[in-house]
Amino acid sequence: MTQTMKAAVARRFGAPLSIEDVPVPTPGPGEVLVRVIASGVCHTDVHAADGDWPVKPTLPFIPGHEGAGIVAALGAGVKHLKEGDAVGVPWLHDACGGCDYCMTGWETLCHDQHNTGYGVQGCFAEYVIANADYVGQLPPNVDFAHMAPILCAGVTTYKGIKEADVRAGEWLAISGVGGLGHVAVQYAKAMGLHVVAIDIGDEKLELAHYLGADLTVDATDPEACERVIRQTGGVHGALVTAVSLSAFSQALRMLRRKGTVSLVGLPPGEFPFSVFDLVLNRLTVRGSIVGTRKDLQEAIDFAAEGKVRPTITRAPLNDINRVLTDLKEGRVNGRVVLDIASS
Amino acid sequence: MTQTMKAAVARRFGAPLSIEDVPVPTPGPGEVLVRVIASGVCHTDVHAADGDWPVKPTLPFIPGHEGAGIVAALGAGVKHLKEGDAVGVPWLHDACGGCDYCMTGWETLCHDQHNTGYGVQGCFAEYVIANADYVGQLPPNVDFAHMAPILCAGVTTYKGIKEADVRAGEWLAISGVGGLGHVAVQYAKAMGLHVVAIDIGDEKLELAHYLGADLTVDATDPEACERVIRQTGGVHGALVTAVSLSAFSQALRMLRRKGTVSLVGLPPGEFPFSVFDLVLNRLTVRGSIVGTRKDLQEAIDFAAEGKVRPTITRAPLNDINRVLTDLKEGRVNGRVVLDIASS
Amino acid sequence: MTQTMKAAVARRFGAPLSIEDVPVPTPGPGEVLVRVIASGVCHTDVHAADGDWPVKPTLPFIPGHEGAGIVAALGAGVKHLKEGDAVGVPWLHDACGGCDYCMTGWETLCHDQHNTGYGVQGCFAEYVIANADYVGQLPPNVDFAHMAPILCAGVTTYKGIKEADVRAGEWLAISGVGGLGHVAVQYAKAMGLHVVAIDIGDEKLELAHYLGADLTVDATDPEACERVIRQTGGVHGALVTAVSLSAFSQALRMLRRKGTVSLVGLPPGEFPFSVFDLVLNRLTVRGSIVGTRKDLQEAIDFAAEGKVRPTITRAPLNDINRVLTDLKEGRVNGRVVLDIASS
Amino acid sequence: MTQTMKAAVARRFGAPLSIEDVPVPTPGPGEVLVRVIASGVCHTDVHAADGDWPVKPTLPFIPGHEGAGIVAALGAGVKHLKEGDAVGVPWLHDACGGCDYCMTGWETLCHDQHNTGYGVQGCFAEYVIANADYVGQLPPNVDFAHMAPILCAGVTTYKGIKEADVRAGEWLAISGVGGLGHVAVQYAKAMGLHVVAIDIGDEKLELAHYLGADLTVDATDPEACERVIRQTGGVHGALVTAVSLSAFSQALRMLRRKGTVSLVGLPPGEFPFSVFDLVLNRLTVRGSIVGTRKDLQEAIDFAAEGKVRPTITRAPLNDINRVLTDLKEGRVNGRVVLDIASS
Repeated sequence: MTQTMKAAVARRFGAPLSIEDVPVPTPGPGEVLVRVIASGVCHTDVHAADGDWPVKPTLPFIPGHEGAGIVAALGAGVKHLKEGDAVGVPWLHDACGGCDYCMTGWETLCHDQHNTGYGVQGCFAEYVIANADYVGQLPPNVDFAHMAPILCAGVTTYKGIKEADVRAGEWLAISGVGGLGHVAVQYAKAMGLHVVAIDIGDEKLELAHYLGADLTVDATDPEACERVIRQTGGVHGALVTAVSLSAFSQALRMLRRKGTVSLVGLPPGEFPFSVFDLVLNRLTVRGSIVGTRKDLQEAIDFAAEGKVRPTITRAPLNDINRVLTDLKEGRVNGRVVLDIASS
Repeated sequence: MTQTMKAAVARRFGAPLSIEDVPVPTPGPGEVLVRVIASGVCHTDVHAADGDWPVKPTLPFIPGHEGAGIVAALGAGVKHLKEGDAVGVPWLHDACGGCDYCMTGWETLCHDQHNTGYGVQGCFAEYVIANADYVGQLPPNVDFAHMAPILCAGVTTYKGIKEADVRAGEWLAISGVGGLGHVAVQYAKAMGLHVVAIDIGDEKLELAHYLGADLTVDATDPEACERVIRQTGGVHGALVTAVSLSAFSQALRMLRRKGTVSLVGLPPGEFPFSVFDLVLNRLTVRGSIVGTRKDLQEAIDFAAEGKVRPTITRAPLNDINRVLTDLKEGRVNGRVVLDIASS
Repeated sequence: MTQTMKAAVARRFGAPLSIEDVPVPTPGPGEVLVRVIASGVCHTDVHAADGDWPVKPTLPFIPGHEGAGIVAALGAGVKHLKEGDAVGVPWLHDACGGCDYCMTGWETLCHDQHNTGYGVQGCFAEYVIANADYVGQLPPNVDFAHMAPILCAGVTTYKGIKEADVRAGEWLAISGVGGLGHVAVQYAKAMGLHVVAIDIGDEKLELAHYLGADLTVDATDPEACERVIRQTGGVHGALVTAVSLSAFSQALRMLRRKGTVSLVGLPPGEFPFSVFDLVLNRLTVRGSIVGTRKDLQEAIDFAAEGKVRPTITRAPLNDINRVLTDLKEGRVNGRVVLDIASS
Repeated sequence: MTQTMKAAVARRFGAPLSIEDVPVPTPGPGEVLVRVIASGVCHTDVHAADGDWPVKPTLPFIPGHEGAGIVAALGAGVKHLKEGDAVGVPWLHDACGGCDYCMTGWETLCHDQHNTGYGVQGCFAEYVIANADYVGQLPPNVDFAHMAPILCAGVTTYKGIKEADVRAGEWLAISGVGGLGHVAVQYAKAMGLHVVAIDIGDEKLELAHYLGADLTVDATDPEACERVIRQTGGVHGALVTAVSLSAFSQALRMLRRKGTVSLVGLPPGEFPFSVFDLVLNRLTVRGSIVGTRKDLQEAIDFAAEGKVRPTITRAPLNDINRVLTDLKEGRVNGRVVLDIASS
């Protein structure tokens, strides 16, 4: 195996990533070295590179947490994996294993977790270290590029839908048909839900319709809420992937009584809501953060069966800075996936 | 039976209620006439009398929706009740019986409901009409005055605790130890919860402690949240009975990850919250409105067993305007109950 | 309107039904008269006609509880329906409305319920009386013959699947692909489940495969359980529509740990099970009985959307005795529906 | 530290345990050596020593899985514990950590688990090896002898009650007031439930009453079920700790509709039940096996607070064979705890 690998390294917050040759890391006990085939690019990578979240990564570091690849080497004591296995490297690198959250299948809430491409080195590189107990298991002949976005966008929206407390046959509004939302529409349909997709512009709404949305509504339509309520009786749940106050407010107004809004974005600042409406209509507002290992495996299984397939644009690792800029400026449809190697 | 009864009638919004002799009403099909023994006074009565909520009652009307009394006459077709039965007359006068909410035991969300002392005549009177299917059944030898507050304050907080998704052994913060909160502390203890009570001033906190709170914290203590988190690890749920923005914000900050804030007050205006915190910590904010017939019966049963006993001050019906003023100005501890008749 | 109607009347248990002209009944308060267009025939009708269940109907009576038809007349006080509305008349004629079960959306467990075609006159007739609050609402242009079986076979299996506590993406075994099971396969697929269908013979298994079953297994295959476990890892839930001890035992053995068997048939006698296995594997065995009004409406909605369509054979009302004999002798595939009138 | 320790060793199934000096084991990575202070004796120890369960332990071995003691040495990599910590050593020695069950907080169902005193050496010894991630954490000044039974009897019944799906204020029948049942009564009361205790003989029923049972019934009373139903309306749930067919049948008959029987014993053979009754009354029968790490911690916390305190008889390790015989012959009230060392 080679001693060095190509990687996109953040050396200064707000500056472009630097494409460098760095040493291939060695897996420690319980870890595996994964040869990255494809790596999705997520908004969180923009925040990591810019260092604009309250808790910042330690420089220098390699971003990226939607890595799909092949196990290249095993650390000591790894039993469930072997070289050659196809695996997914998600945001949750590892967690403590012993706290209340870890003991109850909510390891995503562990206070001692590490995150790929943030607290530990990530997937914008030819190799990445993963914790063997936290990777997603992929089928042998997986399409790595289409699977990569499932590792964050997929599991995040899949979990977010679960957290909206809706059942097959009920209505879910999905606000935003971007990198997260266009995957969410597919999960919701695979779960037997009726879907209202909300975004701005025909292109997004046509994509949603093509992916199975039962109803599409332009968010700028002044009658948007009324239309949704008229045609659905008010939605039972809403998944807000768009990180805007107006999207959140609109979602709340579209709910029928006893409905739930599930939030999966991380916008800064505060959102106001009417307590009077929340109480009188018995509404629920819930934040949802990525998904557990079990959620991840389920999200992967839906995609492996072909029920969910992200819309992707491929780019070489060298283009990462252009891709990050495009993301920041809202020019990406679906998901950009870095072709890091061939399988 | 007498033809007229004494009642406190709202004839103009914002004006004092008028103590008058009005005709005793006649129960229609499915209804019962209840002789009111005791009637609790609730903040909602202030809003009804002032007409300051978005949907106003039609003048003139009799407020009051915490009526405990005895069935005095039956309308046609009433089967489950008989004259002499002790019953409670709650906020929910009736609902449509056929909508999705009514069919699933969530009749409190029915869009076609009527409310006692608001949409229909209420309990600040010697007699009140109730729907036989919506009264609470009281034990024969009930202490009417102490049972009256259960019919709104009791069921509202009992349901609000259920909606906080906490289990026996977990921690619940109860914000506000007034008319609602002092009852909530008792329900929470009867449900096996650990309770942190939060209010301002020693008097309220001592009452909470006396009623069983495991920990009491003064809301004005700048270290309030830190203390709660240190001693409980962060609460699993919070019930906010205090209708203030700061109480809500404080409750959110006291939650451990995956916690739920349950809101039961109806303050006007908007409350801001941080989406970032909500998502990262997987928090849930939920509104809860009174309680269903089943919740009411359960709330009554806890009180009938002696596990919950409101702190009350008695007053004659003639004093209703003073009581409403005291409530508005925050001078009431526990609950004021009008002694309308003797049992 | 005519004064008499044709009906199939049970006059003696175990004897053939008698086709007679009987008076058209008049709807009382809260009731509607429904002109029956199509009426499904269910195994329960055999038991009703034979009087072989512990609690027997009172002779004479008209069986039938899968009636699809049109409202022909309204009793006093009916508000939600009007003449000409398409409705379904299900097994649950009415319930008390005030017990714990009725108050919590479990009216199917009410001890004071009446059942169509058993305790009250049923749908093997040109007209039937229904309680306006307990009919299923059908879309205006419904295909009555295909909707009829939804009113019992549909709702029973739909509810039975819900009671098996399975989520989209998980595996459900459906034991029996007859009148109930062939509908269950379709509901399960519409709910996003993976389905193993189990029955005897290629014909049934091919039907199950055609309807979407992901895996089909012949119950007589000595390796049946092993095959299911190998291909699914053990099913998460099982719905047993086949009323046989061996089907139940087989379903239990196919479960993965923490799995649930949901039983919807009513076989006489006792079934043995191993407590050791139940405890060690944390299994759940649950009985499920028809479905509530809400379940019924949901079951109808799936069918109205075209996601569930029973396989039916049509027969005239005059053939009812032949149909009952065929059912008893296991000669019916899918469901027989009586064409009582044209819409 | 000494090199040898006293232990009770099973060398032949069905023979008395042999009290021997054996080497003190050395903790491997992730393990701790625990100095045992007190060790409860459970029926499972009888089965282990007799080798009469389908999967037998490998001889020779040390039984015992209710060990309360102090960490005496740490294996490599142990972080959450330190020497001197008070810990409980439960039945679940460890599990794989990576299967669906382990990932979702159901590690008690892991197919690759090891069990203390069965698959690995147990607590009838002065020292025992435990997995650091699977011990229960005890408060510093714990009463070891009274805490020991919590580690199996406590957590098993606590979890069994949870699995009965009952809420505060509802009725739970507890069948059997022995080693498990007398603890169950206390957990149920601490959880706010109403309790019917069922056993044979005044002594057991008086103990149940003393521990808080609201109603006690002699199982041999031919009117037992009728009495329970009359006074409770039928119980919402039942916990069967008595391993007899008649106890199970009786519990089923005491349930109200929609009730759940939770089974925690492991009797051999098969139990029959009526499918007709199960379906018509929508009953649930569920097996429950010990409890997860989270359940264990919660069970410990209730006991540490003083809400649950087992009735124990103390015995020296040398008396183990007499104790096992007493257990087998039904002569033990409450729980026998071996005083292995002083704290």
